[in-house]
Amino acid sequence: MSDLEIRRAVREDIPAIVAMLADDQLGAQRESPDDLSPYFAAFERLSLDSNQTQAVAVREDRVVGTLQLTIIPGLSRRGSTRSIIEGVRIHADERGGGLGTRLIEWAVDESRRQNCSLVQLTSDVTRTDARRFYERLGFEASHVGFKLQL
Amino acid sequence: MSDLEIRRAVREDIPAIVAMLADDQLGAQRESPDDLSPYFAAFERLSLDSNQTQAVAVREDRVVGTLQLTIIPGLSRRGSTRSIIEGVRIHADERGGGLGTRLIEWAVDESRRQNCSLVQLTSDVTRTDARRFYERLGFEASHVGFKLQL
Repeated sequence: MSDLEIRRAVREDIPAIVAMLADDQLGAQRESPDDLSPYFAAFERLSLDSNQTQAVAVREDRVVGTLQLTIIPGLSRRGSTRSIIEGVRIHADERGGGLGTRLIEWAVDESRRQNCSLVQLTSDVTRTDARRFYERLGFEASHVGFKLQL
Repeated sequence: MSDLEIRRAVREDIPAIVAMLADDQLGAQRESPDDLSPYFAAFERLSLDSNQTQAVAVREDRVVGTLQLTIIPGLSRRGSTRSIIEGVRIHADERGGGLGTRLIEWAVDESRRQNCSLVQLTSDVTRTDARRFYERLGFEASHVGFKLQL
């Protein structure tokens, strides 16, 4: 396979990112790829926050993967900074080819570079393959993740 | 019981916050209440981030509860903003008295005020009472929470 670049997303990447968010068993019901305006607005907000990185993986000028990395300073664990990974998506053409691993390793390296001592993420319990995937990367499934819709 | 105030923490609250972080089955091994310097440094970082709120519950001039609320803008779910609650601690004298509920409800109201459409948190699987507590407040235990120590 040709070279892969992982970099910070720019506005022009939004249509490809949203297409990946929607091409997903859970995302299909939640996203609106026909109306990109809420995504552009959210990207503006996100871009103003220096603790947020929307990352994209690019191969041959095509966006083939994405995730959001958030840096969270905090008091607990002796004033530790932690990071949170959200919205990991791999293009259907690239699934099973190791790109997910590359993207998560990128996020872990970036978290280390930003002095985090903990990386965390949650995965819907219905994503049965995710547990094996994250455990193989060294993550421990030590927590229950709760959500409240407002 | 006398009136309770929930407000943003100030620097003077740090010793009481750290004492609560340490007075906890898991926190006891992770915190260093005898050396507050890393906590003061972390509080400075946290205070510079407008998406972070370290909240304290105060009764009769005593800090009796705390949590950290982080606002996260994002692309997924049609550009939704979500919030994350971390480090919920209730002073030993106040446990079982409904303060945990008051604090979480405050965080949910504050999330709504900041236009979040989702509130999330994780709880260590060994905290067996937590699941019932959060479910009673309307949270759904829909996710697995993964952590990687760096």
